[in-house]
Amino acid sequence: MASVLDELRQALGDDGVSSEPAILDRHSRDATGIAPHRPLAVLRPRSTAEVSAALRICNRHRQPVQPQGGLTGLAGGATPRGGEVVLSLERMRGIEELDPAAATMTVLAGTPLETLQAAASQAGFLLGLDLGARGSCQIGGNLSTNAGGMKVIRYGMAREQVLGLEAVLADGTVVNALNKMLKNNAGYDVKHLFIGSEGTLGIVTRAVLRLHPKPHSSLTALVATASYDQVVRLLRAIQAELGGLSAFEAMWQDYYRFVTGSDPARVPPLPATSPFYVALEFAGNDAEGDPARFEAFLGRALEQGLVTDAVIAQSEREARAIWEIREGVGAWNARPHGLHLDVSLPIASIGAFAERVRTRLQARWPGSLNTFFGHIGDSNLHVSLDMGTGDEDVRHAAEMAVYEVVRDMGGSVSAEHGIGTLKRDYLGFSRSEAVVGLMRTVKAALDPNGILNPGKVL
Amino acid sequence: MASVLDELRQALGDDGVSSEPAILDRHSRDATGIAPHRPLAVLRPRSTAEVSAALRICNRHRQPVQPQGGLTGLAGGATPRGGEVVLSLERMRGIEELDPAAATMTVLAGTPLETLQAAASQAGFLLGLDLGARGSCQIGGNLSTNAGGMKVIRYGMAREQVLGLEAVLADGTVVNALNKMLKNNAGYDVKHLFIGSEGTLGIVTRAVLRLHPKPHSSLTALVATASYDQVVRLLRAIQAELGGLSAFEAMWQDYYRFVTGSDPARVPPLPATSPFYVALEFAGNDAEGDPARFEAFLGRALEQGLVTDAVIAQSEREARAIWEIREGVGAWNARPHGLHLDVSLPIASIGAFAERVRTRLQARWPGSLNTFFGHIGDSNLHVSLDMGTGDEDVRHAAEMAVYEVVRDMGGSVSAEHGIGTLKRDYLGFSRSEAVVGLMRTVKAALDPNGILNPGKVL
Ligand SMILES: Cc1cc2nc3c(=O)[nH]c(=O)nc-3n(C[C@H](O)[C@H](O)[C@H](O)COP(=O)(O)OP(=O)(O)OC[C@H]3O[C@@H](n4cnc5c(N)ncnc54)[C@H](O)[C@@H]3O)c2cc1C
Ligand SMILES: Cc1cc2nc3c(=O)[nH]c(=O)nc-3n(C[C@H](O)[C@H](O)[C@H](O)COP(=O)(O)OP(=O)(O)OC[C@H]3O[C@@H](n4cnc5c(N)ncnc54)[C@H](O)[C@@H]3O)c2cc1C
Repeated sequence: MASVLDELRQALGDDGVSSEPAILDRHSRDATGIAPHRPLAVLRPRSTAEVSAALRICNRHRQPVQPQGGLTGLAGGATPRGGEVVLSLERMRGIEELDPAAATMTVLAGTPLETLQAAASQAGFLLGLDLGARGSCQIGGNLSTNAGGMKVIRYGMAREQVLGLEAVLADGTVVNALNKMLKNNAGYDVKHLFIGSEGTLGIVTRAVLRLHPKPHSSLTALVATASYDQVVRLLRAIQAELGGLSAFEAMWQDYYRFVTGSDPARVPPLPATSPFYVALEFAGNDAEGDPARFEAFLGRALEQGLVTDAVIAQSEREARAIWEIREGVGAWNARPHGLHLDVSLPIASIGAFAERVRTRLQARWPGSLNTFFGHIGDSNLHVSLDMGTGDEDVRHAAEMAVYEVVRDMGGSVSAEHGIGTLKRDYLGFSRSEAVVGLMRTVKAALDPNGILNPGKVL
Repeated sequence: MASVLDELRQALGDDGVSSEPAILDRHSRDATGIAPHRPLAVLRPRSTAEVSAALRICNRHRQPVQPQGGLTGLAGGATPRGGEVVLSLERMRGIEELDPAAATMTVLAGTPLETLQAAASQAGFLLGLDLGARGSCQIGGNLSTNAGGMKVIRYGMAREQVLGLEAVLADGTVVNALNKMLKNNAGYDVKHLFIGSEGTLGIVTRAVLRLHPKPHSSLTALVATASYDQVVRLLRAIQAELGGLSAFEAMWQDYYRFVTGSDPARVPPLPATSPFYVALEFAGNDAEGDPARFEAFLGRALEQGLVTDAVIAQSEREARAIWEIREGVGAWNARPHGLHLDVSLPIASIGAFAERVRTRLQARWPGSLNTFFGHIGDSNLHVSLDMGTGDEDVRHAAEMAVYEVVRDMGGSVSAEHGIGTLKRDYLGFSRSEAVVGLMRTVKAALDPNGILNPGKVL
């Protein structure tokens, strides 16, 4: 053992390799907090060359490596399982270039997402990626998990924000696939190997991100609909007639009732009697004309019975009140046993899926709290449960009850959070044997000694 | 040899394996027409199971396989090099499902692009992929080449239109990665292995395509600008202030002059005295309000000196006249030695690139015709040359003269057409050794016997 760490110290310098207990503890878990393990050491390289040197040493010694970004992951992907050295990107932060002509930004992987959003904004652009963990998560972690978040319906997942990247393979080879062009068909587009593979195929060290123009108007509304079918029809009607949709968040009555009922002091924008609610945001380029077009659309939707009630936020404060319902933070924080699942299904099936899951859960755990909401436009549903206990077996049984329906209805057990260790046992619910076999083939080809994030995903 | 074909006949039936000379000839080249070779036979499977059976047999016999779609490729990728059996997808055509709620279409790989566009349109949607070869090219070929075309600036490349696919590996394994969800982070996203890999990693047999809402307005204009910098500033101004850009095609004066001067009977929409021209199209959702907003934007651009002249098409006919200039078909058809190169560069460098290339070409071939135009918003430039001769050595020298500048300025030798055989020698101009090495690693892992489209890309 000693010799690996000695070699690593030689390569990274003493302050590049830490074994202080407090630091080992800090790097022993991700945001799930589940099954923490202290790593053998924490490596903090300052450059791609140091990442390469560290991996070369680890690979030679068959030393498992735990890549870590901002540790905000929700799948256990960054949590050591025992015996790893952590490779933290925290020192590799900064923006190397912002090219306004190309509308790109070249960044180091350890840079917090929020820093990048601010830099893009200052240059008059918008970065099409946003999530609650923006202050702590790193762009390298966002790419490695192919993060989703709030802007997917408009700009796509993290994958869609990347034009090129640099990654280091398990054997230390630096793969420079940096690229500023929107079109580049010179051979295989290798960047896709590293996006969404949760640190099992390489360490992301740099990326070229594309930037978008900033919209000029932002309009928020909360509407009520009579059925799930109406929710889908509303979605397609807005996209076809209005365009510019930048959020479309559906809430089932159970969710809306739970969240708005948790704070009796607050009067909800719409009464909690409707089967479905949708919080929606429109962002356009016509600051003057957009409000009238938005209102006219909602008026037509009311007349046609597509929505049964609607309220347009008249101020920032009113808009925030709508998003707070959707986020439901206060209500859920008061529930220590909250269990939050992130799945996706073909859009047409999501209504039936929720009914089947609810029936199943209530049959087995009568009276348990089962709530549903999601980014329906992205085919993404969140199932938030309170089974009334923190018992691991109950949690596991409840998860299984949900994921079995996901499997039977052709959905995915992970819409945006990844597989990590938490969902590893369920990977086969959503991917065929041949697909999992192909993943293994790729893993074996790129990391033959299996040193990168072992035991994760596969 | 006989035994492979016998086995294939047994698996596919007599009419699934053709050795008729006329058919072999038809399958001996792609749209480049370069270096045709008759294949040993043409396989025409009717199903994924037959594709799988055929590949299993070929793999066992180490029999090279040439995948073919619509044979419209422009990189020599579908042209046999000698000794292959052709695997043609032409019998696997049709739309299996169009899901309006999910806004997806599940299709067989051999379906012509135009058939899919029509089906999407009939269902009230738009397929975000369009190219001149739409009537003959197949969606499987489009995905295997990651085709670009006319709508990239709005909807992205072919890759961005795919939610899932089914592919068959060299050993016959059927990889079912069909998926209708916009979000699916259950492990590696293996579909990206097959997109843009030009048939070297697997045969695409089915795909789930995403559909877009149809826009309600379409406005075309031709504008003149004083410099390349103004072209870029105009691009960013439209995106920031107007949105809805669906085409942005820049033409250098040499190109505009050549095309408009080729038909003295026609008066061009703007005189050919400006350094640059841009044909642009805006497609929005506000049929009533859009024309005024578009006109107001161009008015401001003129006032601010961002453009020096502008004409808005007042009819379908006027719009077509603008696009005909951009396409330049008539002018180029009259030039039998036309040499058309498709490259990409960081947007800010494209102006300087064109100047360097022109200077180089004129120094060595004074008086040769050198013209430049491109999808600048996609970082894509087309260089169309007439060196006054069909001589292969001159063609090659001219290509080299251009690609060397691409290399020196960090561009790509293939923006959208792929590598095939035509650009194989230049792959290293745009991809580092480590990236090419990684491509080889992936190729060896997925097709260890190297039977799939040997000698292409790598
Ligand atoms: C409050 C909150 C809100 C959230 N909201 C969302 C949301 O809306 N959408 C969403 O998708 N996720 C969300 N998440 C989950 C999480 O923020 C994302 O998964 C994020 O992308 C993780 O980034 P990170 O830098 O923290 O990565 P980590 O947690 O450190 O690591 C995540 C995975 O990536 C690997 N990794 C990290 N950096 C690298 C690198 N440079 N190279 C290779 N591998 C690397 C790790 O090994 C691990 O497998 C949320 C989390 C929290 C706590
Ligand atoms: C008039 C014209 C205009 C064009 N315009 C454009 C344009 O604007 N943008 C653009 O990008 N291209 C353009 N092209 C090039 C060409 O149309 C595209 O490359 C197209 O995607 C090729 O499709 P295809 O079915 O004809 O494929 P083919 O030419 O048959 O094959 C192309 C490559 O894909 C492989 N392949 C084909 N089908 C499969 C399959 N099912 N599975 C695995 N591998 C397969 C082949 O082996 C080959 O390597 C144009 C061509 C013409 C003739």
